[in-house]
Amino acid sequence: MPTPPTTEQLKKLAKLVRYYILTSTTRAGSGHPSSSLSATDLMTGLIFGGVFRFDASDPHHPNNDRIIFSKGHASPLFYAMWAAAGQVSFDELMTMRKFGSRLEGHPTIAFPFAEASTGSLGQGLSIGLGMALNAKYLDGLHYRTYVLLGDSEMAEGSQWEAIQVAAHYKLNNLVGIIDVNRLGQRGETMYGHDLKAYEQRIAPFGWETIIIDGHDFDEILHAFDKASTSVEKPVMIIARTIKGKGVSFIEDKNGWHGKTLDREQLVQALTELGDVERSVIGEIPGPDDAKPKIIQPRSIKDPDYPPGKPVATRRAYGNALTRIFDKFPDIVAIDGEVSNSTYSELFKTKFPGRFFEMYIAEQNMAGCAAGLAARGKIPFVSTFAAFFTRAFDQIRMSEYSKSNIKFIGSHAGVSIGQDGPSQMGLEDIAMFRTLLDGVVLYPCDAVSTERLVEKAAVHRGIVYIRTTRMDTPILYSFNEEFVIGGSKVLRMSGKDQFTIITAGVTVFEALAAFEILKKEGILLRVIDLYSIKPLDLDTLQEAAQATKAIITVEDHYAEGGLGEAVRGALHAEKTPVHILAVRKMPKSGTPEELLDYEGILKNSIIKKVKEIL
Amino acid sequence: MPTPPTTEQLKKLAKLVRYYILTSTTRAGSGHPSSSLSATDLMTGLIFGGVFRFDASDPHHPNNDRIIFSKGHASPLFYAMWAAAGQVSFDELMTMRKFGSRLEGHPTIAFPFAEASTGSLGQGLSIGLGMALNAKYLDGLHYRTYVLLGDSEMAEGSQWEAIQVAAHYKLNNLVGIIDVNRLGQRGETMYGHDLKAYEQRIAPFGWETIIIDGHDFDEILHAFDKASTSVEKPVMIIARTIKGKGVSFIEDKNGWHGKTLDREQLVQALTELGDVERSVIGEIPGPDDAKPKIIQPRSIKDPDYPPGKPVATRRAYGNALTRIFDKFPDIVAIDGEVSNSTYSELFKTKFPGRFFEMYIAEQNMAGCAAGLAARGKIPFVSTFAAFFTRAFDQIRMSEYSKSNIKFIGSHAGVSIGQDGPSQMGLEDIAMFRTLLDGVVLYPCDAVSTERLVEKAAVHRGIVYIRTTRMDTPILYSFNEEFVIGGSKVLRMSGKDQFTIITAGVTVFEALAAFEILKKEGILLRVIDLYSIKPLDLDTLQEAAQATKAIITVEDHYAEGGLGEAVRGALHAEKTPVHILAVRKMPKSGTPEELLDYEGILKNSIIKKVKEIL
Repeated sequence: MPTPPTTEQLKKLAKLVRYYILTSTTRAGSGHPSSSLSATDLMTGLIFGGVFRFDASDPHHPNNDRIIFSKGHASPLFYAMWAAAGQVSFDELMTMRKFGSRLEGHPTIAFPFAEASTGSLGQGLSIGLGMALNAKYLDGLHYRTYVLLGDSEMAEGSQWEAIQVAAHYKLNNLVGIIDVNRLGQRGETMYGHDLKAYEQRIAPFGWETIIIDGHDFDEILHAFDKASTSVEKPVMIIARTIKGKGVSFIEDKNGWHGKTLDREQLVQALTELGDVERSVIGEIPGPDDAKPKIIQPRSIKDPDYPPGKPVATRRAYGNALTRIFDKFPDIVAIDGEVSNSTYSELFKTKFPGRFFEMYIAEQNMAGCAAGLAARGKIPFVSTFAAFFTRAFDQIRMSEYSKSNIKFIGSHAGVSIGQDGPSQMGLEDIAMFRTLLDGVVLYPCDAVSTERLVEKAAVHRGIVYIRTTRMDTPILYSFNEEFVIGGSKVLRMSGKDQFTIITAGVTVFEALAAFEILKKEGILLRVIDLYSIKPLDLDTLQEAAQATKAIITVEDHYAEGGLGEAVRGALHAEKTPVHILAVRKMPKSGTPEELLDYEGILKNSIIKKVKEIL
Repeated sequence: MPTPPTTEQLKKLAKLVRYYILTSTTRAGSGHPSSSLSATDLMTGLIFGGVFRFDASDPHHPNNDRIIFSKGHASPLFYAMWAAAGQVSFDELMTMRKFGSRLEGHPTIAFPFAEASTGSLGQGLSIGLGMALNAKYLDGLHYRTYVLLGDSEMAEGSQWEAIQVAAHYKLNNLVGIIDVNRLGQRGETMYGHDLKAYEQRIAPFGWETIIIDGHDFDEILHAFDKASTSVEKPVMIIARTIKGKGVSFIEDKNGWHGKTLDREQLVQALTELGDVERSVIGEIPGPDDAKPKIIQPRSIKDPDYPPGKPVATRRAYGNALTRIFDKFPDIVAIDGEVSNSTYSELFKTKFPGRFFEMYIAEQNMAGCAAGLAARGKIPFVSTFAAFFTRAFDQIRMSEYSKSNIKFIGSHAGVSIGQDGPSQMGLEDIAMFRTLLDGVVLYPCDAVSTERLVEKAAVHRGIVYIRTTRMDTPILYSFNEEFVIGGSKVLRMSGKDQFTIITAGVTVFEALAAFEILKKEGILLRVIDLYSIKPLDLDTLQEAAQATKAIITVEDHYAEGGLGEAVRGALHAEKTPVHILAVRKMPKSGTPEELLDYEGILKNSIIKKVKEIL
């Protein structure tokens, strides 16, 4: 382990880092030098000051300390730091922001030292919370998680969600560093350079706070040392910094956010900077070679539901998660204070050590899941389907981190009944379908839910499972096979005239319509499209070619839902696709009244069939 | 003005309110009696204690005090209160949660005394903030805005966004009341009955805090009196309450959230309650008959852009808002700390009194807009398109309040270039399309942007306008007509083989492809579908019938975007609709490199045409 560097050595390194920031941003012609320069001394002190322990040859070492740039626009600093550590060449630095470079405008996981893709503000602390939670309660490792925060982004509510929850779980291994450079994008922040304003607000939440001059290495090193001794509290280092520090003509000046120096200004800035020792390399002590205990997967039982007794798919989710844990010991469940509605409480009761209450704070919950996933866990995240809209930005960003997260949304659709629109998930399919590699599953019965929860655990990536509030009949036997991208043809004959494609609660409306129309001699093909993304193209095309028309039925708004997905899959077919979906302002009522009102009840299906007959 | 009631009279009223809560919820068979009972004395004291001033015969009186139930699940209390005020009959109370009743499971604007539809937690304070902002800075009225908050929902970050911004604007006319009943849905909250925990966290943000026993009328009345004297600070009343107060066998007991009493339990509860005077009517003093000054609309100039000089549509938005203000004096602009990127700063510079900086806190910004809209303003809300995902839940709820809000999202698509995916709006069309009556507009040049901003101001309801970062050529002359639901056929002939339907930045790619293919004798019809929802069915159908195939092009993910909207409109036509959209993980690069990479550049259009030729 190297001896900690002297202040002189750190100053040399900081100078080199500034040199890299200025040259790389001017070369790129865009980016955020001023926001990088304000945090340069803080990050140099952290990474090269001796407290941060990291094996650069193995960025994924389970016991590495973690550094997350929540203020992702300081990416020039992030890359410059790793250049100073000898991990990025000067030539590569010069590719920053160019097409194909690992060094993107904001950090992405294309760069191996990025713990997560960041850039949408107010997310890093939640991701760090997930990593700290993992170290303290799951892996039992001593790595510490550091998060560089901008002062502007402290306005984001998600920060305060993370601040509350981190204190609740006593995450003394989580260290936030606020780079208080006073200036936001378009002017001064709410609190400017009033560091006490941050301390007074954060400390009462149960955080240790340390106020420092963010350009004084003695104070910086002392702060990180102190932070590493916190016993029960997470630590927030609140640092007074100067935006553009080191370049006199942009220092603390408004109008320099996200603005690079032109060639002349660069020459002037580098002259001010003075001689730079390009040869110095910042050293980083390695971590103790500790590893998490590996729990061996064990075999599990099949689901078992008596055919006669209806069960809500949300309850089946809770049963499934509990049942499959032995086979997937990396599973962790988190929930937004509704575990008795989503039934994640069944898992919590059986495996209390693998469940974390996230309270009513969905943004932080989603960010925390990304942190857990980055540390190799399989987070199952549950709340009402409607309330995932709260975390759309975090969900969107977790896709850019290729996070392995499972989101389970209960209380989908108008079929929840009396509680009314505020509680109805009617945009969730559309929202999760926009995720590039996202999977969207919507099982109709307990057995398919159990099987799909298991498939979700196997699949690497983001999976959304939509569950239903009301009990639904058991449709499938436990030995039926369900796969991501699959479907089930429930009714089929050589004489089918129309195809009903649906999923979830309306599958039973389609089956009921089938029986009634059959008596009238009208035969329907009925398909349970439990996998909405990806979807079973072959089966859908076969149905399109075999029948005169397709009618999709969904307890979701028409826009972006199952119907539009089916139309996409069948756009090359001539068969018309009619969409029955929620199109009127929902209200309170019984599930049946509301399904009827929205035209997705069995009689609406029958009506539609006769209309196009 | 009636003399303030005695404590005895208030107790009588509270008893009646409890009677209504218990009978109506048992009758409904679902709902939240326990969460209503905890806040009964607080609300009885507020509404009937003399401080609250409201003309029940005119719920929309501009100078009425406002009461918002952020904890919307306490709707039984909300309705019972108005029943006690003589505004809801006992018979109507018995219709609560029934299909067609104004008394929905959570308050909606179907009930005239509801200022907004609530039920998704953590939104009421932001809505109240918008109303308070309106009173103090816009209408110059003395009405006060009260928000009933649950203790569980204080975990939501949006609350802390509102707490920061309300203090920043010194909204001493905003009063929050936290009903600290200790129990959330599935157990105890983070702070239980520790009232100081709330005070210590909220006061440092610049709020006046008052801790009281939420069941002691003397303390309640005194708190509201004190709250009404605050000079500069918003006020938070932190009340210790008992969940289920008044029904001994559910008081402070877990497992009674969202659970109603059965008949027997009701009888027992009513026996405990004792004699109820059904005849008492709570009196509410009326407001001073003050009204906001009406500013007469004035005529405005036409937009004027020299044809030769490209202008970014985001800049045209700023120009437009500034230009049309005289004609629409109810306009207010708010922005999420990016006004120099969205160009709302142009409006701010010209009309500083009509612009409010909302800082980087999008959830509160959207909630604030709903509050402003409820008070008759036309809020224009701007940030990066990507960051509206942050406020999806608030946006979703504002639709249920039929709010008149205009959202303007800049930096749409991969065409923003080097900043990378975190800053790219690629889900925004899908998100806003899910709004039932939402309008989605995506202009390609400055002139159409100017015209559509004007149309958005005229339209009542939610309108989303998508703008572009880069400069684009001026395509239209100032006398062209643009309407919601319209489109422009840019290229057309009798011999068109294919139709390109696009909007925004890719319109110019389509026009370039047209020129190249024309030389090869392949004629295209090119349609600028600037109104994506609603869309111009006639023009699309005509194109579908006149040409062999349709190709849609959009700088947005394929799911839920323009292409799926077009497929929906043309599902009855046999003409195939091919979608060119963003389908690969975006990265940093030049706009052209990225449009090319995603297959939405002119050459991708040409390739597609030749493929299907």
